[in-house]
Amino acid sequence: MTMRDGEKPAVHGSLFVVSAPSGGGKRTVLRKVLDRDGKAEYGVSATTRPPRPGEVEGQDYFFLSQDEFQRRIKAGEFVEWADVHGNLYGTLRSELKRVTASGRDVFLELDVQGMRNLRNAGIDAVSIFIMPPSLDALEARLRGRGTNDERDIAVRMRNAEAELDARKEFDYVVINDDVDTAVADVEAIVRARRLESARQP
Amino acid sequence: MTMRDGEKPAVHGSLFVVSAPSGGGKRTVLRKVLDRDGKAEYGVSATTRPPRPGEVEGQDYFFLSQDEFQRRIKAGEFVEWADVHGNLYGTLRSELKRVTASGRDVFLELDVQGMRNLRNAGIDAVSIFIMPPSLDALEARLRGRGTNDERDIAVRMRNAEAELDARKEFDYVVINDDVDTAVADVEAIVRARRLESARQP
Repeated sequence: MTMRDGEKPAVHGSLFVVSAPSGGGKRTVLRKVLDRDGKAEYGVSATTRPPRPGEVEGQDYFFLSQDEFQRRIKAGEFVEWADVHGNLYGTLRSELKRVTASGRDVFLELDVQGMRNLRNAGIDAVSIFIMPPSLDALEARLRGRGTNDERDIAVRMRNAEAELDARKEFDYVVINDDVDTAVADVEAIVRARRLESARQP
Repeated sequence: MTMRDGEKPAVHGSLFVVSAPSGGGKRTVLRKVLDRDGKAEYGVSATTRPPRPGEVEGQDYFFLSQDEFQRRIKAGEFVEWADVHGNLYGTLRSELKRVTASGRDVFLELDVQGMRNLRNAGIDAVSIFIMPPSLDALEARLRGRGTNDERDIAVRMRNAEAELDARKEFDYVVINDDVDTAVADVEAIVRARRLESARQP
């Protein structure tokens, strides 16, 4: 028996990885979850792409040169990284440790391959796949944005079909039919994780 | 890709096992959870103790004779059973199947040994330990009931200490400091379980 009144938990925070097909509404859901949750934050990614106006180093991204990014890949400092149209993006082990060591939870938005890389690296993470209610709804949502041409929509729909097939590889699947329901779903997953016996003093 | 609009899940319900030291407030928490949850119910236990006035066969308990209970033990029909002061209590495999096959979730209140028996029988269950905020609070709650004498309280406190040590064997630990918070905790665990990718179509 070690239970004492007022004892503080000495438990590290958790890592949550969230994936969704483009147009799945992932960003809206996560922003709402993190706005309301005082114990979780986004993990900051590193990238070789140049900062856009207003972007802050260490807040929006860690901006690294190609050489520096490559050096850190070789040093094993990334838990996952990817080349997106010639720019490198990745997650530094040190960033995950910084957040979780403080007892806070960290959220990463990764694509399916990013989640696989993380899993293959043996990183303990809770993975959540956010799914559009149907492919028809996804297509409607992509068109609703008004920013995609027909060819782009066709490519995104093909990618989405492939990604949807991967949903069984995730721990949880949240269907984003109604945003508030999807937010409550993610919140329940986070709350349950914090109640795991292994994560309590 | 098998996602179709309006497709119905063909997934079985889950089994939730809830344990708590006597005075932990388990019953109050579970009653609130089940009152609000349209997809879960209590599993009905079998017992050899005679029905009390008003108790209904198949609703409060399955009332079995000693011979019938023993016969079913030998036939392997119980997933767990226990002798409590000469009366036998147990959970029939058929009862769990009846509920979960309908897609509904079933809740069992078991003591720590009952949870272990279930686990050892290879039954897939989500186990939740409901903990009083502290031993002091537990003792105050036992006294507050006004129904226990000093010796009874001392016995219950000793049992509680032993049971609290077992909390790490459970999947989840919910601290029942505030009833509404504990209810929301259990609801989050249930909601998260239903969102597991393996439990979705």
